[in-house]
Amino acid sequence: MTHAALKSWPEVAANLVAVAAGRAPADLVLKNGRWVNVHTREVIENTDIAIKDGRFAYCGPDASHCIGEGTQVVDVAGRYMMPGLCDAHMHIESGMLTPAEFARAVIPHGTTSMFTDPHEIANVLGLSGVRMMHDEALMQPVNIFTQMPSCAPSAPGLETTGQEITPEDVAEAMAWPGIIGLGEMMNFPGVINADPKMLAEIAATQRAGKTVGGHYASPDRGPAFHAYAAGGPADDHEGTCEEDAISRTRQGMRHMMRLGSAWYDVETQITAVTEKGLDPRGFILCTDDCNAGTLVNDGHMNRVVRHAIDCGCDPLIAIQMATINTATHFGLERELGSIAPGRRADVILTSDLKTLPIEQVYARGQLIAEDGVCLVDCPHLDWPDSARNTVHLDKDRVASDFEIAAPDGKNKVTAKVIGVVENQAPTKALTAELAVTDGLVQGDPAQDICQIALVERHRATGGVTNGFVSGFGYDKPMALASTVAHDSHHMIVVGTDREMMAKAANRLAEVGGGVTLFADGEEKALVELPIAGLMSDDNAATVAAKATALGRAMQDCGCTLNNAFMQHSLLALVVIPALRISDLGLVDVTTFEITDLFEES
Amino acid sequence: MTHAALKSWPEVAANLVAVAAGRAPADLVLKNGRWVNVHTREVIENTDIAIKDGRFAYCGPDASHCIGEGTQVVDVAGRYMMPGLCDAHMHIESGMLTPAEFARAVIPHGTTSMFTDPHEIANVLGLSGVRMMHDEALMQPVNIFTQMPSCAPSAPGLETTGQEITPEDVAEAMAWPGIIGLGEMMNFPGVINADPKMLAEIAATQRAGKTVGGHYASPDRGPAFHAYAAGGPADDHEGTCEEDAISRTRQGMRHMMRLGSAWYDVETQITAVTEKGLDPRGFILCTDDCNAGTLVNDGHMNRVVRHAIDCGCDPLIAIQMATINTATHFGLERELGSIAPGRRADVILTSDLKTLPIEQVYARGQLIAEDGVCLVDCPHLDWPDSARNTVHLDKDRVASDFEIAAPDGKNKVTAKVIGVVENQAPTKALTAELAVTDGLVQGDPAQDICQIALVERHRATGGVTNGFVSGFGYDKPMALASTVAHDSHHMIVVGTDREMMAKAANRLAEVGGGVTLFADGEEKALVELPIAGLMSDDNAATVAAKATALGRAMQDCGCTLNNAFMQHSLLALVVIPALRISDLGLVDVTTFEITDLFEES
Repeated sequence: MTHAALKSWPEVAANLVAVAAGRAPADLVLKNGRWVNVHTREVIENTDIAIKDGRFAYCGPDASHCIGEGTQVVDVAGRYMMPGLCDAHMHIESGMLTPAEFARAVIPHGTTSMFTDPHEIANVLGLSGVRMMHDEALMQPVNIFTQMPSCAPSAPGLETTGQEITPEDVAEAMAWPGIIGLGEMMNFPGVINADPKMLAEIAATQRAGKTVGGHYASPDRGPAFHAYAAGGPADDHEGTCEEDAISRTRQGMRHMMRLGSAWYDVETQITAVTEKGLDPRGFILCTDDCNAGTLVNDGHMNRVVRHAIDCGCDPLIAIQMATINTATHFGLERELGSIAPGRRADVILTSDLKTLPIEQVYARGQLIAEDGVCLVDCPHLDWPDSARNTVHLDKDRVASDFEIAAPDGKNKVTAKVIGVVENQAPTKALTAELAVTDGLVQGDPAQDICQIALVERHRATGGVTNGFVSGFGYDKPMALASTVAHDSHHMIVVGTDREMMAKAANRLAEVGGGVTLFADGEEKALVELPIAGLMSDDNAATVAAKATALGRAMQDCGCTLNNAFMQHSLLALVVIPALRISDLGLVDVTTFEITDLFEES
Repeated sequence: MTHAALKSWPEVAANLVAVAAGRAPADLVLKNGRWVNVHTREVIENTDIAIKDGRFAYCGPDASHCIGEGTQVVDVAGRYMMPGLCDAHMHIESGMLTPAEFARAVIPHGTTSMFTDPHEIANVLGLSGVRMMHDEALMQPVNIFTQMPSCAPSAPGLETTGQEITPEDVAEAMAWPGIIGLGEMMNFPGVINADPKMLAEIAATQRAGKTVGGHYASPDRGPAFHAYAAGGPADDHEGTCEEDAISRTRQGMRHMMRLGSAWYDVETQITAVTEKGLDPRGFILCTDDCNAGTLVNDGHMNRVVRHAIDCGCDPLIAIQMATINTATHFGLERELGSIAPGRRADVILTSDLKTLPIEQVYARGQLIAEDGVCLVDCPHLDWPDSARNTVHLDKDRVASDFEIAAPDGKNKVTAKVIGVVENQAPTKALTAELAVTDGLVQGDPAQDICQIALVERHRATGGVTNGFVSGFGYDKPMALASTVAHDSHHMIVVGTDREMMAKAANRLAEVGGGVTLFADGEEKALVELPIAGLMSDDNAATVAAKATALGRAMQDCGCTLNNAFMQHSLLALVVIPALRISDLGLVDVTTFEITDLFEES
């Protein structure tokens, strides 16, 4: 299997040569354009482009000799012809969409190549889930490459994933046609400590000649950082400041700067190029995580490139950072990322390089979007039952599953509380004094403290970990449950009412996963995510509308957070400080240990 | 077999990580240097570098934590630490040296990586000859990669090589450990015409994920050039003017600019960067061909980089063009070409980035040269008899073999004459009226016309092609014979005296190949080249001295040409206009046809 029906350059070289030489007609000629040349960093006026078999055959001043019977000729009337945009690192699951629907959503924005790490499904379904994402990716009319997830679990010993990824899995996947490298190596302490499993995954990737994705989420740029670089990761997208950007590129890592739905790391880092004057070839743009709403309302890589330009980056350099730099990084420089002979004929037509209106998008020589409308079919995989039936409860949850018994004889307790921090991924490890009623510890609306539960859903163990969370502002009887529950994606239930917590959990078991909000005894919002409990069958607009409704329902319960659902879904992410919850208990992510709910008294 | 004793990054990653983290001692630490960072295009003051297992482990402000028992610490006292230089395209045989002796000659000049196309030996010994070069290359203390020759013969039908290279040979070689890609695809008319053999060689290389070397030696930048680019070559080094440079990089080919012993193509092309402002990442420096004298007296890639700087190129950009740009082009960016973790620890120490004195050279963490002296062993292959016994004559040549009979009854003839042009590779197709004596056409010193013969030496066919040449200025009885006779490397004999032409030819059969000059009845100079008739067993200084003596002997015979021997050796190069000689006859290289020696009268 290769990317849908596209033949390789060597397979069609004779045809490309014949077109360029004028012996055979092109399939398509774009005439009178301005060639955005990312190799030379030039705009070349009065350029014609001839396309054959989905690849560029001729790019130069006059393609008249390439036009013959059957050639479609389009006069682009002086518009810019630029390469299709590449997203160098991203998780499709963050959109709650399948690869097909994600593609359909981003095609009108000019994204024609994506480097995707199906880390979330790997935690639920392991290698077989990765393979399904990979297979649907290869069915699309645009180029979706798969980075083999490296870290499931991302915090071994602190959580139980649905499935695990092993070095043997990584070695096996390296032979799949759509695998472009290793997904972000999040276990940076493992690399720094020369964990044999992590180094084996990196080695398998390097031996396959593929690119090792990095993830160094620490402000420490001392020996630990240098040790990580020495371990082999070839890029990083976790930097947040100019010094991070400079340090990565100096080490010969490519530095990816992200603008996602909730990541704003371009403005603070691009000054390494715009002010410090570093060679821009080491810099790449990506999104990492975009929700459906961003895709529907704001854009995708076009949004990132525009933003980089708004931050003072030369437009041609910004475009290079989302085209040829990405292609070079993944060893695909002669396959995509530029308008040049032999490459996949992925072209955006735009009237302005600064504001970047995406007027037409061609992929593999076919017009696939025009004026914001996707014109092409994005085929769906026939997702098997194994992917659609992933919410396993031993039996219905009941309110008593969420009861938190006080230590014997106590009528108040000092409990640890996960503190949500607005606009930040790290939580605070709070403590609070909570009342005990009938032997049960109670939440406290006055302190904005409600209950949180991690409901095991992979193996139907019946396991429920209970705790407390603060920061959502919920001020009425409610519960929010989600099977999007990074990284092991059990089920996170947050609520002020145990009955509704049980109802919400059972509802997700009923619909096969997703997000539901109950308030005042009834369901107020539902986003069904039947595929692995992570992705919808539906399109981006529908999912975005449901997610918007969910957000409104959260507001109706008193929540005023930005990215409120994202905050919810990250409360089990036991690799980011300070206090989290997992199926194994409450986790202190400063010491990487399971910790007691109650303070010693 | 991999490069001599060097372990791969994944094999030593745990050690590199341990050194960088401070848990294990480095083998070598270079302290207090200025880091020439070719990723960011910066010089970073006060940098320490720690090396372990031949690779960089730590590059940063303070490697104190990497120093322990057994660590060698060198204070480089503020000198620049720059990556070892790469020659992106070159023919070792042009030095008349083996890979080992070539390496020994260039190591003191700071060359630590070479991308070599053993095209000459391929014409003599075919795939087995390529394998010998490849094997000796891998034995060296520096990095010699082999480009699989693509075109033997380079002009099918116009000459008979000793052996031929087939698409099957190319596919086989792609699996060898030291093969980095396909050698220059000289048969550009073949590519433009979609010759299935040429496209099959390119396809085998692309499918192996390796780099296809180009060679587009035509001033035509129209459809033919575009067709060549569409065929797949990824680079070109045959450009001679700024427009050539611009046209190649715009097509997404990397443009190699060469300064060889007789190539001066940097100054005329580097303005594409220095004046036109093109992105320099598309440009690479190389030598293509250096004779031993250049290596001994002038340098190697250090000479090219210095020259680029003298032409106005920013020193850091010039260094990038001989380091990281080359590495990226060949997919080796994470293996060499920069000072960064994991890469081969190839470092030059220099006090000045503009004049570039090569003070110390480290390769794989070992000091291999200091102040112009090579400090390391460069092991020789045990070249087999098949490589040492390649000059096959059926019997001794005699003067009558070189007689040119006039058409019946003529006492003068109009003959075609190969016209040598000073400082240019193309010849002129001249005609001259020549006298006939005893039925034999005679050369004419007054017109500077003497005889040329192509003596078959691969299969002992006894074949001799006779013709005339003008431009050497030989003014006494003499003959110069050479088994360096591009591209099929039979034997070219030029002389004013048939007896001495026979003597010279026989002398080369006796010594197993090389170059000999006879004058006034005796041998005046001899360069023995017993390996394939192309390479000496000796070192560069000895070969250079013999070549110098040969040049003086040519001058003593009246020759005033620059690069006089090179002109001689190219007279059978039937891919460059206008008139050449081959074992099949006189060749009109404008029509690519065998042509008669005499004009119709």
